[in-house]
Amino acid sequence: MSPPPIAVTLGEPAGVGPEIIVKAWKSLQQSGPAFVAVGDAGVLARAAEPLGAQVLAIDGIEAAPDLFASALPVLHLPMAGRPRPGVPDAAAAPQVIAWIETAVGLAASGQARAVVTSPIAKHLLYGAGFKFPGHTEFIGDLTRRLPMTGVRGPVMMLMAGDLRVTLATIHEPLARVPGLITHEGIVRTGQVTAEALRRDFAIANPRLAVAALNPHAGEGGALGDEEIRIIAPAVEALKALGIDARGPAPADSLFHADSRRGFDAALCLYHDQALIPVKMLDFWGGVNVTLGLPVVRTSPDHGVAFDIAGRGIARADSLVAAIRLADQIAEHRARSSL
Amino acid sequence: MSPPPIAVTLGEPAGVGPEIIVKAWKSLQQSGPAFVAVGDAGVLARAAEPLGAQVLAIDGIEAAPDLFASALPVLHLPMAGRPRPGVPDAAAAPQVIAWIETAVGLAASGQARAVVTSPIAKHLLYGAGFKFPGHTEFIGDLTRRLPMTGVRGPVMMLMAGDLRVTLATIHEPLARVPGLITHEGIVRTGQVTAEALRRDFAIANPRLAVAALNPHAGEGGALGDEEIRIIAPAVEALKALGIDARGPAPADSLFHADSRRGFDAALCLYHDQALIPVKMLDFWGGVNVTLGLPVVRTSPDHGVAFDIAGRGIARADSLVAAIRLADQIAEHRARSSL
Repeated sequence: MSPPPIAVTLGEPAGVGPEIIVKAWKSLQQSGPAFVAVGDAGVLARAAEPLGAQVLAIDGIEAAPDLFASALPVLHLPMAGRPRPGVPDAAAAPQVIAWIETAVGLAASGQARAVVTSPIAKHLLYGAGFKFPGHTEFIGDLTRRLPMTGVRGPVMMLMAGDLRVTLATIHEPLARVPGLITHEGIVRTGQVTAEALRRDFAIANPRLAVAALNPHAGEGGALGDEEIRIIAPAVEALKALGIDARGPAPADSLFHADSRRGFDAALCLYHDQALIPVKMLDFWGGVNVTLGLPVVRTSPDHGVAFDIAGRGIARADSLVAAIRLADQIAEHRARSSL
Repeated sequence: MSPPPIAVTLGEPAGVGPEIIVKAWKSLQQSGPAFVAVGDAGVLARAAEPLGAQVLAIDGIEAAPDLFASALPVLHLPMAGRPRPGVPDAAAAPQVIAWIETAVGLAASGQARAVVTSPIAKHLLYGAGFKFPGHTEFIGDLTRRLPMTGVRGPVMMLMAGDLRVTLATIHEPLARVPGLITHEGIVRTGQVTAEALRRDFAIANPRLAVAALNPHAGEGGALGDEEIRIIAPAVEALKALGIDARGPAPADSLFHADSRRGFDAALCLYHDQALIPVKMLDFWGGVNVTLGLPVVRTSPDHGVAFDIAGRGIARADSLVAAIRLADQIAEHRARSSL
């Protein structure tokens, strides 16, 4: 019997999601891993037509793996109206949210082995009651009552090339970041990261490098004291928990090739500190993973790209990488004793 | 007649400076550009011995270019005591400062065509009356009464691979950065950068990308308003001055290879935003240039490295690159009509 499929949400229907899902299906059609799209089959059929791909609407996802080689299976949850590529329309918001809820529910029940989310336009969702900064926090909330072992996240990890980074703060104005850096936040992020490296990435003894906040890691306090007051004690606390952690490490010297060989993940303190290196190493193929959830969830590391939607030029590299990674994590997690 | 030599300061005598100066001489001995070290000839002779290099103490630097192929010429300004590699000693501070002043004076008078500074340990200099955050500001002060055309800096530029970045703030705690980002600061930094690209780098129509401060360039104000209040108007002011400037550009998407082809320099707002990409592109060979000075000044992009001083393993890549760049800038500046 085939293993359960991966559930890929359609995301924003007027963005590049439909196109890259079809392109990802074409990339993975022969080799797998098999996935099922969760969304409106008509939207996907219109994206599939110019690409010469077949879409098959299904009611239950058990059959998806066996169908996958011949058509893109879609768990058909129709939306009202017909999206125009590149034209944002908040009317689709309830469906966009429902597709995520459905995919997470399928993963929670074991019918899907993982969830991969396509990009959403958050500002279009707020009118429909969505109250989260992004997928990461929404899925954290959807799964908060599900049982899980280990420290609960959600923690955002990004991967590109040989680099993994996790973030202690994510979408915050830079001026707010120093006030949001806490002992508890760093320790929790470090614990979730280390546990995920063991369970989801099969790294027996993960090495963690914790980035500094200030230039030259504060230069002994002359350029900021967060390293002395907060970050260094948090690194000590992680060590006391048996985690191979070091830092605070000057961020500018942390991401070159020689340095990257010295850790399995870098714990970063703010968005651009993590995202500048990720996007330099692989602008098109970076992947986002949510750690510390009872379900496996990855996503491409880009947005809805309304500006190029419907033009046939969107690249599916990141979505394909996200689907492959979700498959690997599910495999590792199934075998893990943690 | 040979062109004037480049003046290379000895820097911190107990750091890697003496060793990398000798190694740089060995690299450039045949090809040039010719330079003269400014410092204690005995310190350099002791560094030269294990490397099989010759040092020649001289009183005036005119002869340096003709001597350069056979020995490392040193404008001998002796220090009291004998430094022990790796052992910081504040007693050397007056000489360390005097070497910089002498080298800058030689460049100001035209006897040297450029100044290249070796790393200093600033904390050792403060007791001797040094009151600057670093070389950049010290040399800005030393040359403030010299005539120059164009907007005066100093502005720090770093170069690595195909990337040039300039900094609107440098060695500041991250928490202070948002308060230090001003319209005037960005405009002045942008003007100095654009003028230097024309005069010192011979780029006729330089293109400037101004980085954003906040994630996603503030996402329309949702993730910080400095882009709206300060940075976008400063970019408009630069355009009104005839400068090909764009931004604020999300910093995470600014430094990958495709993006780098779209600008000649990125104007960054804080240390790690600029230094993470620089050190990823070339950890060993990055170069620091001070723009907006009446003299040409470059330096290697690393510190005194007390931990490896005297062990023979320091790499001179960055110093060699700094000397070569100083030579090119001096050449461009001599030919420039600006």
